[in-house]
Amino acid sequence: MLPVLGQQFIAGARSGLGETRHQSVDAASGEALPYAFHQATLEEVEQAALAAKSAFGPFRQLSPARRAEFLEAIAEELEALDQEFVAIVSRETALPPARIQGERLRTSNQMRLFAQVLRRGDFLGARIDLALPDRQPLPRVDLRQYRIGVGPVAVFGASNFPLAFSTAGGDTASALAAGCPVVVKAHSGHMATADLVGCAIERAATRTSMPAGVFNMIFGQGVGAALVAHPAIQAVGFTGSLHGGQALCKIAAEREQPIPVFAEMSSINPVILLPGALAARGATIAGELAGSVVLGAGQFCTNPGLVIGIRGAAFTAFTEQLKGHLSAQAPQTLLNAGGLLSYQNGISALAECAGITHLAGQPQQGTKAQAQLFKADVNLLLEGHPLLQEEVFGPTTVLIEVADDAELKRALQALRGQLTATLIGEPGDLRQYHWLVPLLEEKVGRILVNGYPTGVEVCDAMIHGGPYPATSDARGTSVGSMAIDRFLRPLCYQNYPDSLLPAALQNVNPLGVTRLVNGAWSSESIVP
Amino acid sequence: MLPVLGQQFIAGARSGLGETRHQSVDAASGEALPYAFHQATLEEVEQAALAAKSAFGPFRQLSPARRAEFLEAIAEELEALDQEFVAIVSRETALPPARIQGERLRTSNQMRLFAQVLRRGDFLGARIDLALPDRQPLPRVDLRQYRIGVGPVAVFGASNFPLAFSTAGGDTASALAAGCPVVVKAHSGHMATADLVGCAIERAATRTSMPAGVFNMIFGQGVGAALVAHPAIQAVGFTGSLHGGQALCKIAAEREQPIPVFAEMSSINPVILLPGALAARGATIAGELAGSVVLGAGQFCTNPGLVIGIRGAAFTAFTEQLKGHLSAQAPQTLLNAGGLLSYQNGISALAECAGITHLAGQPQQGTKAQAQLFKADVNLLLEGHPLLQEEVFGPTTVLIEVADDAELKRALQALRGQLTATLIGEPGDLRQYHWLVPLLEEKVGRILVNGYPTGVEVCDAMIHGGPYPATSDARGTSVGSMAIDRFLRPLCYQNYPDSLLPAALQNVNPLGVTRLVNGAWSSESIVP
Repeated sequence: MLPVLGQQFIAGARSGLGETRHQSVDAASGEALPYAFHQATLEEVEQAALAAKSAFGPFRQLSPARRAEFLEAIAEELEALDQEFVAIVSRETALPPARIQGERLRTSNQMRLFAQVLRRGDFLGARIDLALPDRQPLPRVDLRQYRIGVGPVAVFGASNFPLAFSTAGGDTASALAAGCPVVVKAHSGHMATADLVGCAIERAATRTSMPAGVFNMIFGQGVGAALVAHPAIQAVGFTGSLHGGQALCKIAAEREQPIPVFAEMSSINPVILLPGALAARGATIAGELAGSVVLGAGQFCTNPGLVIGIRGAAFTAFTEQLKGHLSAQAPQTLLNAGGLLSYQNGISALAECAGITHLAGQPQQGTKAQAQLFKADVNLLLEGHPLLQEEVFGPTTVLIEVADDAELKRALQALRGQLTATLIGEPGDLRQYHWLVPLLEEKVGRILVNGYPTGVEVCDAMIHGGPYPATSDARGTSVGSMAIDRFLRPLCYQNYPDSLLPAALQNVNPLGVTRLVNGAWSSESIVP
Repeated sequence: MLPVLGQQFIAGARSGLGETRHQSVDAASGEALPYAFHQATLEEVEQAALAAKSAFGPFRQLSPARRAEFLEAIAEELEALDQEFVAIVSRETALPPARIQGERLRTSNQMRLFAQVLRRGDFLGARIDLALPDRQPLPRVDLRQYRIGVGPVAVFGASNFPLAFSTAGGDTASALAAGCPVVVKAHSGHMATADLVGCAIERAATRTSMPAGVFNMIFGQGVGAALVAHPAIQAVGFTGSLHGGQALCKIAAEREQPIPVFAEMSSINPVILLPGALAARGATIAGELAGSVVLGAGQFCTNPGLVIGIRGAAFTAFTEQLKGHLSAQAPQTLLNAGGLLSYQNGISALAECAGITHLAGQPQQGTKAQAQLFKADVNLLLEGHPLLQEEVFGPTTVLIEVADDAELKRALQALRGQLTATLIGEPGDLRQYHWLVPLLEEKVGRILVNGYPTGVEVCDAMIHGGPYPATSDARGTSVGSMAIDRFLRPLCYQNYPDSLLPAALQNVNPLGVTRLVNGAWSSESIVP
């Protein structure tokens, strides 16, 4: 059996001072797994934060190439984890082994993507304005700017991606790429997974000679609040509920030194079915949409939770087809018992709300989640009813029928900020409804055409973010290489001796990066 | 006499619903000027915020070149303001006409710099990952990302730069460049100036056919809080006191939808005198430093408020020379009576503090500020005494003598976040004390060598920002072209028809911008 120590990761060592233990649980059966985890004490939280602070100086001053080696070593260590690891993740989350393996590849590729970003060097944002000693009325001094990490980052693992959004997930990868040590708060739903991934990161840190404290992780309930409040922590990455994200934002704002929080929280990801598409291929869309709704038991941030169409025969026929698909779905085990309870409460609230009709889905009972379909009166949306604004995490969606284009516009205006909005349309639809796009642009982080929002490519152009409450800060993304920007800040050197400047800013451009020199982009050396 | 209407600017019109009036005051004499300003009512605050919201859609969708024309027109209108305008600014602020004219040029050049940024197009951050339909195990969809404005921005004018950090200052210029309409809260210290500059912006908006509501401005006490709390406002730019900035951050964090605040607040800008430089040119440094301390009556965010040197004969001699320079300074009129009161309170607190010695300066009396020099025991700094952490706004500075390098290091570690740190050193000093730099990098936004922090060049590489409490968010700058980044957020299009994409992302690259295409920077067209 793989060794799972169940202790905090602090400065390259393990610590288990807390007497309270938390047991890992089999998500499908509810039975205890043979893995117990010490609750981190406040002293250990402090040690972890201080370890990250100590590592910050040496780690951020490593060359980008050295940090890239570390990320690539993490990728290799993740890929070297064996079938027993996959089995443990699967038991803790009820996710099937094939999904775990796919997610692991996504996670290691994500590390490699950030290694590429580091080698490319544009994340440094190097800008140089050379001295103009003869300028009138005043000379210009030599000014050079690049970006450094903000400091230690607290990372909160997500329940629904035990690998890609957790211990070695996108927040960790982007923080480490930026030169920021991390303190991960392991998610209580997959602690053994976190422990084994933490060990993989430690092996990578050791073999690439990273400073102790570049990676730290704590276990336990309520320790996240103490972590975010600790003065050494300089930024927070979080994926989870609206309630949880708001609580962390409040703690961060009330610190003596407030810090930025990048919380990815709540999105219902509207899908807009345009008339031409419904008429031409309504049956196909119903099948595809049902697949997106129930994918991964609906436990995705980008799960389509609201489907909007214009009244008419085509939408009625589509509704019947979608009912058929969702009625026929087999029940699925959710990530944990808490998730099942939330799902039950969420669909009960929908079912009991005046103006919302249950259209399809087996009665919710037992230990698995049944897919459910509802239809809501558009007036609930127009009036801002909270049930139509907050996600129900699981395999369900809500249909909204609007009378006409004007009501469609008002319905979309009534939505809060979202991660995504999707347009399903024929080419003619997209031209005819192009007026919708500016409205959606102000509501969401990603606009999709003829696809489904589940499935988030990890690449340079991806944005997994959006206006509040989809996230706490629309200027960030938690997926894709631009995630590194969240953890960088600019620093300027004035009249600084060339030989003492950071490599990115020296005249000879030893890193070979592209720089904005006197207002023009160049990767050349500067001849002073 | 120039017409000064004294009413709010809302959606291209003027409004004076409030019965309370505020009188503009001559800064030197305290006498009332013939300009009265209606206090904005809450209804007018709402109207201004909603006007900005209405303008956001059309304004952000203008081409960057169209917004550049607007900024250039503002620059021209500012430059066309005549000597009577300069005289009014001078009367409201007690700043000499030559300074006003210099600051006006800086302000119009700042508009032109952002126009260049718009024409260059890199602020758009265009990134394209083309579809890979044959990729295994899953195809990649077409993903394209660029940045749009976050929405209406509330701008708070600063007392000390009636032009460059006020109505048409850096926050306004960068917000407008980003496509964000603004609502300016005019500073109560130069309301006639604000009115006349507001009219200049309106003329520029009219002749470049900008949407009504692209620029709005309100007058009055306490109206800023209502403005920041208004749901239409999506970000805040502020330059002022720690207390004022913290209050706005609190309001912004407690909104139903929290928004980012970029507050530039409090910095004492340490200057570190290295031994070789003191030995070689201590007398010169004393003269230069005194000039920086009293420049503009010390009313700069980057005023050097703390000077640190290592004990020894050279530092003692330097201290005597600095005493001489500061004793010989003529008193100066401050920007307003409130500033004088704050200055008197600040220097009294320093004078009365055990461990702080008054070294030079005439007794503070009358209506002008006397330059003052203090020396503080390093232990006060090491213990985190608040008097050595918060700026005294005016022509004063505090000397700190450290015993040796180790104490120098501890003293710098005890500092909070700063806009700037300055090293005065000979080439040998800079090599010998290079170990200081990583420490300073984590404390400040700009490191200067052999210069003085007053004088902030407006260019691409400048950073006027820094860790808390210098600013509320170290990731921003309020001076230089990177200020635009504060007001932009990314937006991603997935599988979107080329002809309907924003110009920046279309295959033919009609804007000719440099884009990150499949991981490589290119300004070429894409051949699909």
